[in-house]
Amino acid sequence: MSDFHQRSLIIHEQLKGKISVVAKLNIQTKDDLSLAYTPGVAAPCEKISKNPEDALKFTIKSNSVAVVTDGSAVLGLGDIGALASLPVMEGKALLFKKYGSIDAWPIPLDVREPADIIETVRRIAPAFGGINLEDISAPRCFEIEEGLQDLGIPVFHDDQHGTAIVLLAALLNALKLTGKKMSDLQVVINGAGAAGRAITRLLLGMDLSKEEKQDFEPAKNVVLCDSKGIISSERKDLLGYKKEFLTYTNVNNIGGSLREALIGSDVFIGVSKGDLLTRKEIRTMKKDSIVFALANPVPEIYPEEALAGGAKIVGTGRSDLPNQVNNVLAFPGIFRGALDIGATQITTKMKLAAAIALANSVKHLSVDRILPSPLDYTLAPLIAKAVRRVANDQDLM
Amino acid sequence: MSDFHQRSLIIHEQLKGKISVVAKLNIQTKDDLSLAYTPGVAAPCEKISKNPEDALKFTIKSNSVAVVTDGSAVLGLGDIGALASLPVMEGKALLFKKYGSIDAWPIPLDVREPADIIETVRRIAPAFGGINLEDISAPRCFEIEEGLQDLGIPVFHDDQHGTAIVLLAALLNALKLTGKKMSDLQVVINGAGAAGRAITRLLLGMDLSKEEKQDFEPAKNVVLCDSKGIISSERKDLLGYKKEFLTYTNVNNIGGSLREALIGSDVFIGVSKGDLLTRKEIRTMKKDSIVFALANPVPEIYPEEALAGGAKIVGTGRSDLPNQVNNVLAFPGIFRGALDIGATQITTKMKLAAAIALANSVKHLSVDRILPSPLDYTLAPLIAKAVRRVANDQDLM
Repeated sequence: MSDFHQRSLIIHEQLKGKISVVAKLNIQTKDDLSLAYTPGVAAPCEKISKNPEDALKFTIKSNSVAVVTDGSAVLGLGDIGALASLPVMEGKALLFKKYGSIDAWPIPLDVREPADIIETVRRIAPAFGGINLEDISAPRCFEIEEGLQDLGIPVFHDDQHGTAIVLLAALLNALKLTGKKMSDLQVVINGAGAAGRAITRLLLGMDLSKEEKQDFEPAKNVVLCDSKGIISSERKDLLGYKKEFLTYTNVNNIGGSLREALIGSDVFIGVSKGDLLTRKEIRTMKKDSIVFALANPVPEIYPEEALAGGAKIVGTGRSDLPNQVNNVLAFPGIFRGALDIGATQITTKMKLAAAIALANSVKHLSVDRILPSPLDYTLAPLIAKAVRRVANDQDLM
Repeated sequence: MSDFHQRSLIIHEQLKGKISVVAKLNIQTKDDLSLAYTPGVAAPCEKISKNPEDALKFTIKSNSVAVVTDGSAVLGLGDIGALASLPVMEGKALLFKKYGSIDAWPIPLDVREPADIIETVRRIAPAFGGINLEDISAPRCFEIEEGLQDLGIPVFHDDQHGTAIVLLAALLNALKLTGKKMSDLQVVINGAGAAGRAITRLLLGMDLSKEEKQDFEPAKNVVLCDSKGIISSERKDLLGYKKEFLTYTNVNNIGGSLREALIGSDVFIGVSKGDLLTRKEIRTMKKDSIVFALANPVPEIYPEEALAGGAKIVGTGRSDLPNQVNNVLAFPGIFRGALDIGATQITTKMKLAAAIALANSVKHLSVDRILPSPLDYTLAPLIAKAVRRVANDQDLM
């Protein structure tokens, strides 16, 4: 076991949980006890009973998020189940607090059927003002998230949208540095799972009205690849959501392998497995190519190698390399904004606003600095402000 | 609206939640972030994946309790539903923290069928080391609690057992002051719901083996009354759990009204509705009678009136009167003890040990002081110690 893993085990064992509950008031007199518990609680209970929206006025609901998973697709670990995923969900709750001042609690669910997960989230929803879905395998995550959009509180699968938002912010800044234009890009995405689908849909500006596209000119040409190559009408093995990609990706309907897709492309986005490409393939891309190699811990291609192949800008998921695409840049601010105004959903327009605010937060752009540091605690408030603004416009209150 | 209610609303609105989540470690460097989240979390995740018991070593599970309700029987408010019960569940979580140093989170469930509640609790169990059931109506609460005893973590319905434990402690001390003996008592309980059933079973030492009864000589004669009078074989309207009472209460099978039951009895325990009795009925009880009038906020009879009728000791549920029977005297210590040793259930022997420890904690007994103050923060550790000891004896680890 590596030194790093050993240190992690020691810290986790010392802490026995990375988060804790604190009381926001003291109980020192009988009056304190009577106000905080019985009979004092009767007053807010009766208010909420008459007007359910008063829950946001009198309870934790205004600031609480459940971090829900089934442990089916945990980080690089895969399907380790609900219990074993708990350290990840605690870590997520910790980040919610540190960056977004949000009270998040881990709720790993010991159940697997999407319909059962949807049902369980509906049942536990009363105490929460938002649901962060985490580490649920595709395509189940799509069905679960979509099935919960009418819950009345934001339900957001971070592995999809958090990644997509940060990636879009990085790409927007990369375009500024390369002079390329979003609508002209040929984008190749390797990995047609949760993140790949969400990135594709956000880059293409899907779910935006024509009017909304005035603020954002989307990409037009995204080619998706999975382990069998380009998703095109040539492929006879496509089922379900992968078949749906045919209706909105690969406008020229090119077929072949990832290697073939890359020829003449502007942007590569890897969200699958590492160690896939060399400078040779990057050389086949257009001039000033942009490479996001997000597989973790081993990226699809290391920056040094990609730059040697002619890439102008390279980002990865690793904290020890430049331009880290890290979800913590987005989700705390997005939930903060949504909770602040009691939004009922996190819409595409809110996601877009978050990406743009994140991109614009970088004041001195350079090829080594297209994203802010994940340690920048000033970001979440900025993003929250942007989210509040568009959400208010949409009358989501 | 009373001044008190108004103050409660103001406090609840200022706080917007009586509990909050805190991070137990800081994130100031990339190394901090890598250890607390990805890739550092992989190490404890893998440990737990191989050995589920390691969850107690590395996560919040060792110290976390879900406060679960369906909002069907909330305090004096009745069936106000899951959302409106949230201020109560937050208050409970607050008391868990303040008295037991336990991280409790409210989980009001928007579902009603006992089988569905059982299923949901099983699904959310991974992140919790214990389940406190709260304010669930009878007889559903019996089915739900019993259906969860194999969950592997303690599942404890406080309205039943918390009340029963504190009541038993109070009664044990009342016996010391009156010289009465538990096995000679004629006990009348008015209210055949959750609390009435649990008190009856604990006083009778049910679920204790003969050997275990060496430490506790139980009561022999408990007569239960509901709104229609004494539960006896005369009654033809009894169904379900009320019919079961015939097998273990009312050994002499007397019939009639509550008034008739009280004649010649030693102890009255009221856990139903207030304003039921006057000194006249107390006069019909045996000499040095003991009265616990726990209806809240208006007791079955006020202490002054009961004392005028000849009662020697009177307790109520009110904080402004002597001898307050308050659940906070028991549940934080019981869960603290159970969590400390990773107990899988809270057994009758543990409940009994808690009651005895609670009774013995009162050093200078008097008729006005048979229980400690609910503000006594030294109690929970005492009770936890007693619970740990018997749980260890029972090899519940």
